Amino acid sequence: MNQDKPYAIGIDLGGTKIIAAIVDEHGNILRQANAATQTEEAAQAVIGRIGDLVQTVLDESGINLSRIRGIGIATAGIIDTQRQMVIFASNLNWSDVPIGAILQERFGVAVQLINDANAAAVAEWAFGSARGTKDLIYVTVSTGVGAGIISGGRLITGVGDSAGEFGHISLDPEGPLCVCGNRGCLENYTSGLALASRAREQLLQGATSSLLVENGNDLSRITAKEVGEAAVRGDLLSMTLMKEAGYYLGVGLTNLIHLFNPQVIVMGGGVMKNGQLLLAEAKNVIRERSISRMANQASIQLTTIGAEAGVLGAAGMYYPSEREMVEV
Amino acid sequence: MNQDKPYAIGIDLGGTKIIAAIVDEHGNILRQANAATQTEEAAQAVIGRIGDLVQTVLDESGINLSRIRGIGIATAGIIDTQRQMVIFASNLNWSDVPIGAILQERFGVAVQLINDANAAAVAEWAFGSARGTKDLIYVTVSTGVGAGIISGGRLITGVGDSAGEFGHISLDPEGPLCVCGNRGCLENYTSGLALASRAREQLLQGATSSLLVENGNDLSRITAKEVGEAAVRGDLLSMTLMKEAGYYLGVGLTNLIHLFNPQVIVMGGGVMKNGQLLLAEAKNVIRERSISRMANQASIQLTTIGAEAGVLGAAGMYYPSEREMVEV
Repeated sequence: MNQDKPYAIGIDLGGTKIIAAIVDEHGNILRQANAATQTEEAAQAVIGRIGDLVQTVLDESGINLSRIRGIGIATAGIIDTQRQMVIFASNLNWSDVPIGAILQERFGVAVQLINDANAAAVAEWAFGSARGTKDLIYVTVSTGVGAGIISGGRLITGVGDSAGEFGHISLDPEGPLCVCGNRGCLENYTSGLALASRAREQLLQGATSSLLVENGNDLSRITAKEVGEAAVRGDLLSMTLMKEAGYYLGVGLTNLIHLFNPQVIVMGGGVMKNGQLLLAEAKNVIRERSISRMANQASIQLTTIGAEAGVLGAAGMYYPSEREMVEV
Repeated sequence: MNQDKPYAIGIDLGGTKIIAAIVDEHGNILRQANAATQTEEAAQAVIGRIGDLVQTVLDESGINLSRIRGIGIATAGIIDTQRQMVIFASNLNWSDVPIGAILQERFGVAVQLINDANAAAVAEWAFGSARGTKDLIYVTVSTGVGAGIISGGRLITGVGDSAGEFGHISLDPEGPLCVCGNRGCLENYTSGLALASRAREQLLQGATSSLLVENGNDLSRITAKEVGEAAVRGDLLSMTLMKEAGYYLGVGLTNLIHLFNPQVIVMGGGVMKNGQLLLAEAKNVIRERSISRMANQASIQLTTIGAEAGVLGAAGMYYPSEREMVEV
């Protein structure tokens, strides 16, 4: 890996927005640029816009392409990291898009794809507070639940780049049918969607809560964000729902601890922004139920990276030696 | 890794028996020797006996120590693969035994420890029918349930060499308390102990079965082996119990598929010897519940290695390049 080339470019390709950033080996963002994704256009046009953003950060930073190790692209959906293609991404409306080859042709540097949960894990590992550990799991609790898993100093991708579907492990074989086809998936108990739908259910059944009044008696305005904020303010219903979600999260994290024996678990995602109660309950469950030697080896912490996780993780793929060198 | 040295020695250190074997890069066992473990003796004496077995296979094969890459030791219990120590092994009655250093001193070659489920995984990977795959999980269903996981061409050990506790993932947070402290662990539904205890329960409640007569009306003689054999013969109670165990195994394997996206899952362990029905039911659950793309990528097969898995896996740690070279 071109150790003499000090920079990498990270792209965060979302359904709404594209972010491009030029990143050094310490995770400093030298220059950043955004554009709307405009998924109504053809993939070729979107990729053209990504390329223009790359050119913009190069121009504005005054860094020559010859000093770039490569371009990393973090995106949702099913990707193929061998052929650097997006196989299917519903948020982009893409099927079989050879984005890697197109950008490699334009810039003549390596292009690597990574899914967004994995990118967040790499960002934590390369540049976050847990950098240097060889055994780190990043868990996102957002609309859904996902994980990026680094074990023995390497990202776990699986044979088809689909590993880490933490939201779809079953915690109850007789539980509700999940969209994935499985039953009783973690995501049905702990996720933004689950929190919002449980809050609405309880309110419809007449539960007392400040949620309704604060949202103009409009159930449809109640999302996980409202529930999380109300829990922080002390709304009892919201606190109960966050604790319930935390209970199942703790059961799921115990399973991860038993399977991966991680050193660090970093929690991120929208729901975690007001997730103190949820995390406290999850930690209770872990303390009570995990094999104690393994629980003691696993430090569970909130992410400190935030919105830049995508570009940092995408660029972070190009800094493996630094990752190995740093000690926890 | 000493590519010019063609052999490795594998040790299978069990509570009853020690096996030593000299193994070539293709997994051929050139010479093998056994001894009783005699755990009533001090660890030093047991290690002495292991050393004598190593010397025996060297002498009898006529292979000089200079042609040995290293000695691998597969054992149960908690091990430290950095310091090559057995931290705790109840079946040996050992605590903090520096077996690696002692044998390295005696023979002057590298010594590496590996836990027995991981050894079985390495054996499959290095020498089994699935050799060459980078994403393989070995699952043993025996008295308990465990797994050895290879992902991206590397063994998943975790920070404390304890990864792969597949028997202790929870499938029901409100389920029975497990010996590990967790609730509703897979091992409580699918394992030799669970099968035997369910059979006895059902018989005590008056279930009709050939099991009782065949075991002289002695409940204590009914183990998972009897249940498995009776299921193969068509005993309805035993068939039902095997199918139930298979159902939970399928739920657990679906979780593994969603987390690791493996290419091959190899099933072994005593219970699988009569496990056709159990495996068929597990496959049904996987087909029904796993994300189909990931289920289609995972081939599930029975082990073809058997009793030599320990020595082959222990020796197999010394053949990484061959593993990488072979294509599935």
